[in-house]
Order: sequence, then structure tokens, then C-alpha cells
Amino acid sequence: MTAACRAEHIAVGSEILLGQIANGHAQTISRAFALHGFFLFHHTAVGDNFERIVKVFEVAARRSNVVVVTGGLGPTDDDLTKEALAAFLGRPSELSPEALRQLESWFAARGRKMPEQNRKQAYRIAGGELLPNPNGTAPGVYVCANGVHYFLLPGPPLEMEPMLQHEVIPRLKQIFGGGQVLVSRVIHFCGIGESDVDAAIKDLTGMANPTVAPLAGEGEMLLRITAAADHEEGARALIQPVEDEILRRFGSYVYGFDDETIASAVGKALRQAGATLAVAESCTGGLVSSMITAVPGASDYMLGGVTAYHNQAKVAWLGVREETLARFGAVSEQTALEMAQGVRERFAATYGLATTGIAGPGGGSPQKPVGLVFGAVVGPDGRQTVVRMQWRGSREQVRLRSAKRVLWELLKLVSPRAEAFPGAQSRA
Amino acid sequence: MTAACRAEHIAVGSEILLGQIANGHAQTISRAFALHGFFLFHHTAVGDNFERIVKVFEVAARRSNVVVVTGGLGPTDDDLTKEALAAFLGRPSELSPEALRQLESWFAARGRKMPEQNRKQAYRIAGGELLPNPNGTAPGVYVCANGVHYFLLPGPPLEMEPMLQHEVIPRLKQIFGGGQVLVSRVIHFCGIGESDVDAAIKDLTGMANPTVAPLAGEGEMLLRITAAADHEEGARALIQPVEDEILRRFGSYVYGFDDETIASAVGKALRQAGATLAVAESCTGGLVSSMITAVPGASDYMLGGVTAYHNQAKVAWLGVREETLARFGAVSEQTALEMAQGVRERFAATYGLATTGIAGPGGGSPQKPVGLVFGAVVGPDGRQTVVRMQWRGSREQVRLRSAKRVLWELLKLVSPRAEAFPGAQSRA
Repeated sequence: MTAACRAEHIAVGSEILLGQIANGHAQTISRAFALHGFFLFHHTAVGDNFERIVKVFEVAARRSNVVVVTGGLGPTDDDLTKEALAAFLGRPSELSPEALRQLESWFAARGRKMPEQNRKQAYRIAGGELLPNPNGTAPGVYVCANGVHYFLLPGPPLEMEPMLQHEVIPRLKQIFGGGQVLVSRVIHFCGIGESDVDAAIKDLTGMANPTVAPLAGEGEMLLRITAAADHEEGARALIQPVEDEILRRFGSYVYGFDDETIASAVGKALRQAGATLAVAESCTGGLVSSMITAVPGASDYMLGGVTAYHNQAKVAWLGVREETLARFGAVSEQTALEMAQGVRERFAATYGLATTGIAGPGGGSPQKPVGLVFGAVVGPDGRQTVVRMQWRGSREQVRLRSAKRVLWELLKLVSPRAEAFPGAQSRA
Repeated sequence: MTAACRAEHIAVGSEILLGQIANGHAQTISRAFALHGFFLFHHTAVGDNFERIVKVFEVAARRSNVVVVTGGLGPTDDDLTKEALAAFLGRPSELSPEALRQLESWFAARGRKMPEQNRKQAYRIAGGELLPNPNGTAPGVYVCANGVHYFLLPGPPLEMEPMLQHEVIPRLKQIFGGGQVLVSRVIHFCGIGESDVDAAIKDLTGMANPTVAPLAGEGEMLLRITAAADHEEGARALIQPVEDEILRRFGSYVYGFDDETIASAVGKALRQAGATLAVAESCTGGLVSSMITAVPGASDYMLGGVTAYHNQAKVAWLGVREETLARFGAVSEQTALEMAQGVRERFAATYGLATTGIAGPGGGSPQKPVGLVFGAVVGPDGRQTVVRMQWRGSREQVRLRSAKRVLWELLKLVSPRAEAFPGAQSRA
């Protein structure tokens, strides 16, 4: 086995430093590296400036032995990544006749002549090689110098991602062999505060392998367990007892694992129960429906929904009583409940769900401030839940947190769970 | 005037390097710096590792004179940012009795006693100061050493962002005075492909000040014009003629500017026209409603909507004829149109909008493949539009692109525009 991978990702592009686009590649590459057990210790972003790119290579070469660069391989004068690396390494660039032919046929296949400026994409750094890019004109570059492996990849995600999978990862496996695998397990919680969880896992967060770290989510919280081992099974065997212990302590607040969302967990529970759902939304305005239908196969259990933004729609479409609106107001426990009952009956669904509230920034009053939201869930056999939430935060946060919380209430009604952690207050 | 700002952002957190969360602060801070004319030349991310954080400070201190760090100020043993900076600067940390009192009252106001581990948040680096954090327990840190200004900010966005605005930016203005201001104008397009725009602005993208750069969006495209000048007005004066020229060429495909979204543009147009809207969604499943109601004040024009995922709901709730479904299918121009007509009539809205399609990944057929979506908009005086879309991409992309495209069709129906650029194909 050779030395361990100490990787760094460098994103090149002024638009990243101006905040005009997010540096999404950093996350994509980090995920892929973690999945395959390659340690990645730094992200860097730098603008389209020759000298600063060269300096960033200097820093990277001192601390990393794998440098993956995205962006700056296009045909324009602003695309400087390959030129800067050649200058930093002190190596000339050479035209690859084969790459030039491929470029010309790429354009020919699209009925166009190759513009002269694209010619520079067919150059490789001496001693290195070009990496095929089936989805665009910019080939990648691989070159190893002074023990550092450089991979230059194009910026567009649909070009970069296949090259990462098919060119970079396989070469790293060849170079570093079966290194240590890093496996993570993420546990998703709803209805419990971060500090309540934190306080009750002090004995777990101090461990070295696996590590346990709390992550803050929007309207939920997450715990990440990460283990390093020679093989994936070994890492999972380290994770399992810790996961079991966390479930023993907080199992009743856990809705899912890894990439699961509260909406996919609700979908799984409804499918298992052979149940269906209809949704009535006021302040969330379609967000709950949209989250549910974002899950593939949602048509198996999602019958539909009504966005009843106006009182008139609540009465006409959902059968909310005028008397209820007059006496308690549209933002009330009673209205939420009648909305959920109404949408359940009218769609003939097993479960009805409803939200009504004041998402802000306007529309609040001293009695009913911005952020006050009621959620209701109505099921068979008279089972029902109403939850009162009082959020602080932006309109977006109020909507998202309310949507997640009412889906969590639905999940509990569909698959009831014991209160395994009675010490923690369920809090909005 | 003093030296120019050469800023760097450092994000601290292993979850970023594992790809478990995106480094969103990098973009937020970049935007704020660009807006106020402070040049930011590097982003760095590093894990929760004391030695690596110290080394990242070494690199930053060599190339930057402003270093903004996010994350690692919490109470746990994993939170190492302040300790690493103190070690790098060779300065001791001192307890601030005032900060300790504030921390204790923060917990007291929430009916809790301050946990002992939070005590470390009340320490400041000698010679520096603590920055108030009204939204959490971790104060920020400001310290200037060897000509470098360090700002340490907490990781949670709702804590970090107000401190960036109220603590960091004002101090930078004091330190660097009125430097060159960098102003950007972003123009949003819908219904036109990136390559059509690219091909017709070659003369504009070569300029030095302002610069014009195309940015790819999901279901839309964007052009960014950026100018540098001594004052904001000077920069805007450089941008204006270029913006005018772009509008002259593609004005009919422009829906908005800067932070506008297609949903906020639709909202503005509906409000101006004194019109109302009702929405019927099948494949987008609430996404269109959710986008519309995400805009503050949407209740002025949004009456409501129906998510009619099942055929039965399309008939019962929207009045789609059984015959139409049997003859043309649920995914058809005819069904889309009847859905839009139905929701418009039943909500008594000025405009009705509908989507029906196959978002995937399952459910496709040779005749009606995944990604086939019909959108319909029906307005007063018999005005109506039906658009057939055939997308490639994930379920999420199909839904989002369809939602944006049908909102674009609605916008055109509400505020008709001339076809100023007939050469470009309107494409799905």
C-alpha cells in the first residue's frame, strides 16, 4: 500500500468569488472522495487570474498529494487553469493531434467548423495526458509531478461529474490502492431540539472512531456517525453499535437515515400502511404537496391537495364553517382541524393534513404574530393531532419548518412510536 | 485612502469536506463583499483539525489582509477556530466577564442554566474584541494582527448573516474607506437557450469594464454585467448602455433583474393588472403554487390551487371531462387546457394555470416518454396558451423547469411583449 491520499479541491472562476454561483463542485467531489475512502482536507476557490492560480498551486503542492481542479479549461482567454499549471510546473505544452481531431469531429457532428480559439483545448502539459470528455469540448488533464497528482476537469457539472467517476476515481484507486474507507451514517431527527440531543450524547461525541457529530438542519436536526476502516463492512461494524445506542436513546424522534427526507419517510409509511393522503394548505401554499410529490412514486399514495389561500376557498373547497372562521379566525387550531377533515373527506383519503398560519413578513398582529402556524392531521378511527407552532425567521424558514413539522406529525400518526425519550420537550 | 482590501473566506467544518453540507457562507460573504466593493480573492475550507486550521491561517496571512472565518465557535471540543487563531498569533485568551454575563442571561431568558462548556465562548483573544451575536450563544471575534484583520463568525446562517452585515461590513468601510465599488446587474431570461444568447452577444462578452458573462440557471438563463468604479453611480452608468443594448436584442425574453424570480415577476404583473390566479397541478404537484406563495404578499393575487394527482381528482375537482381523459390521456394538451379552464372557473380567478406530465423516473412510455409535460394558461377574453415540453434530466429538474416555463407563459399572457428576437427558437 502506498501513501494515503491527502486531496484538495480547487475551484477556478471569478463568478464563485463574486458570489454569483455556488461552488457546487466542492460538495460533489467531497462526497465522491468520502464514499471511496480518499481523504480530502482542503477546498480552495480562486478567480480567473493567472498569478493567483499559480500561487494557489504552490500552496496546494505543499500540503496535498492529489489536486483536483474544476473550471478554466474552456476556449476563452479567461480560461487559464492549464496554462497556470504548466507555468507552475515549468513544463511546456504540446499539441495532441489526436485531441485536435476529436475536437474537430465534435464540432463536425454538430454541423459546425471548429472555431480557432478552441484549438488550445487540444494541448496537453508535457509528461501528462488528456482525459476524454464525452459531453463537451474541453478534455481533462492528468499530470503527476513531484509526487503530486493533478487532475484538471471542466466546469460544467454534466461534463465534470462523469469524468470524476470514470477518470479520477479509478486512477486514485490505482495510485492509492485500497486505502482506508470513510463511511458515514446520517440520522435525521424531527420534533426535538439540537441542545436536547447534544446534552444527552456527550459520551458519544468524544470518541475517535467512529466520530459522532451533530449537524444543524432547517426544521430538523441530524447526527453524523463517521467511521474509518480498511473495508466498508469494517466501517459499518464500527458504526452499528453507536447507531443502536443513539436509536435506543432517541429512536422516537428519528424519521430516517442518510438521504431520506421527511417526505420520503412519510411516503414509505403511507405505502406500508396501504394508506392515502390529501393535503390542504394555507400558509405553506403548496410546499407540503410539492415536498410529497418530489418523491418518485408519490402517486401511489398522494391523491392531491388544495391550496386554500383565501377564506372563501377554505369554505367552498374544504367545508370550513363560516362560524369557525368568524369565531376563531383563519389562523387557529379549529380552522386547521376543519381544513384537514374537509380535505380528507372530499378526497376520500385515509389521512388529511392541513396548515394555516402567518408566514410573514407582513400580516401579523399582537394576538397572532408572524410565525404563528397551526398544523393538523386527521386519520381513521378518530385519530387526529393539532400542533401550534411559533417560529422566528424568514418567510421561507417559517414555511419550510412548518411543512416539515406537520409531515412529522403525520408520520407519527401513520406509524405510532413509543415516547423513548420523555425528558426532551417536543418543541416547535 | 488606505490599502485595498484583499479578503479571504475560510469555512471551518469537517462536514463541508465530507460533502455533507454545502459551503453556503462562501457565496453569502462573496456577494456581500462584492456589493460593498471589497475584493475577495480566495475561499478556503478546512476540517475541525487544530493543526490544519493553524496552517490555513498561515497561508491566509501571507496573501490576504482580511480573513473572515465561519464556524467552529460553538461550545464543543470540536469547535477550535478561536483557539487555533490564538495559537497562530501567539496570543493568550482572556475571559470577558461581560460576555460571560451576557451568555448567562441568554440561557436564563430561556429558563436554563448555562452549561459549563459554554464558558469558553466568553473568552476573547488578547488585543481583540468580541462581536455581539444577538441570535445565539457564540460571540464573534475581531482581532487585527500584523496588518491582517481577522473576523471569526459563528456557523449557523441566522447568526452569521446579521453579524456580517452589522459588524464586519461597517468595520471594513472604516478600515478601507471608499474603495472601488463592484456593481453587478443580473438579467434573467426565460424561453430562450443559452447558446442562442451566447451567439448573439459575442461583441459584448469581450469588454473589460463592464464585463458581460452568461450564467447557466435551472430552467432559465442569466447574463451578468459587472462594472468597477469609484462610486456606485459610476458603476451603474457603465452598466446602463450595455443593459439597454441587451434588452434591445432580447428584451422579449427577459422576465426580471437581480434577485427577481419568475414567480415574483408573475406576482408583479398580476398585481399591476389587478388580476388573480388559480393553479391546477398534476406532475408539478404543488411546486408552482409553492413558488408563487413564496413571494411575500402573494395573497393579494393568489386565490389558491388544486393538486390533482389522480385522474379522479382531475374530474371531480377541476371538471376535466372523462371523455378527454379516455381519448387523449391525462398527459395531453387537451387535459392541460381543461384543467386550467376548470381551476379558473371554480376559483373565479382571472387566470388559470395547469401542468400535467411525466416527471419520472418511472411512468414513461414510447408515446409519452419521461420528461413530457404540458402546460396551459387560460385568461380572460378567450386568451390561452398551451405549451408542450420535452425535458431530459432528473425528476427534480423536470418539475422545476416545467414550473418555470409555465410561469413564463403566464407572464407573457398577463403582460404581452413583442417578439424582439425572432431568430431564436423558443425551446423547451
